[in-house]
Amino acid sequence: MFEPRRIKHCRACGNPTTYRVPNDDNRERAVCGGCGEIHYENPINVVGTVPVWEDRVLLCRRNIEPRRGFWTLPAGFLELGESTAEGALRETDEEAGARIELQGLFTVLNVVRVGQVHFFYRAQLQDTGFNPGPETIEAQLFREDEIPWEEIAFRTVRDTLRHYFEDRRRGVFEVHVGDIS
Amino acid sequence: MFEPRRIKHCRACGNPTTYRVPNDDNRERAVCGGCGEIHYENPINVVGTVPVWEDRVLLCRRNIEPRRGFWTLPAGFLELGESTAEGALRETDEEAGARIELQGLFTVLNVVRVGQVHFFYRAQLQDTGFNPGPETIEAQLFREDEIPWEEIAFRTVRDTLRHYFEDRRRGVFEVHVGDIS
Repeated sequence: MFEPRRIKHCRACGNPTTYRVPNDDNRERAVCGGCGEIHYENPINVVGTVPVWEDRVLLCRRNIEPRRGFWTLPAGFLELGESTAEGALRETDEEAGARIELQGLFTVLNVVRVGQVHFFYRAQLQDTGFNPGPETIEAQLFREDEIPWEEIAFRTVRDTLRHYFEDRRRGVFEVHVGDIS
Repeated sequence: MFEPRRIKHCRACGNPTTYRVPNDDNRERAVCGGCGEIHYENPINVVGTVPVWEDRVLLCRRNIEPRRGFWTLPAGFLELGESTAEGALRETDEEAGARIELQGLFTVLNVVRVGQVHFFYRAQLQDTGFNPGPETIEAQLFREDEIPWEEIAFRTVRDTLRHYFEDRRRGVFEVHVGDIS
């Protein structure tokens, strides 16, 4: 969650910071009153997949907050040391225990309000044996007319699913870029 | 630049942190020995444009390190409070003083080694009056055969320019996703 002004102490020396505009900059940063270290805060990336088996899509019911009990596509925060594709693959394994073959990048959705960019890749499930991790109550395949639209956890997941079914009907998968207001 | 283990003090209370794997996690984080705050470190996003006027592309010669004196497409770090498109527009204004109309997202390039994801949008220049900011020595339009390939600052810029000229020759612009090794 985007929490401005949350850096109260310097990561380098522990002294208190104050928010001010550094020289040669044009916005406020947490600047250390001791050593002068400047702390930048930037949006972070969430990466996930649309795992497909025949005409069905795999959703996971969340076992953690926020939105515990709601359905999501497997996704989570991109980590240092991995690409967006590697992160999407890892999250699909961790949350659903599903074996997939990654296909193309499918959606790039800005969620400016919370300082996040969400990436979803299309993916081909290799089998239907799932093994959900602790963050997931259950993993289940849904046909389009079975999708629990009112119980989808996040707008980026809903938009990604809508784009997926629309493109599938048209027979052409494109990369969709958008903003969640 | 991706600098692991750089968080030595807690941002909330200033006490020293140690790197260890928190409960319910699977990788090391800086955990505060005082209040228990967990500090996550994630890749950050760089956003920019390929600004085009007729058959020429706008490049900026860098006035700052790294790669001072080398040529780049206008680009910089995505900030909180803006979308990737808004950030790309802002950087094009700040670095080149160029007026553009944004077109589609064009490249998404992972630079895992430094913990960055680079996004470039295609853009139509509205005129050829540039007004470079302090981070830029000069802004100049280049035809394909004039591009100073040996003096391009970053691999993501070189790859983006290559994809641009290839797609222009084919007459179809796609979204290119890749990794810089």
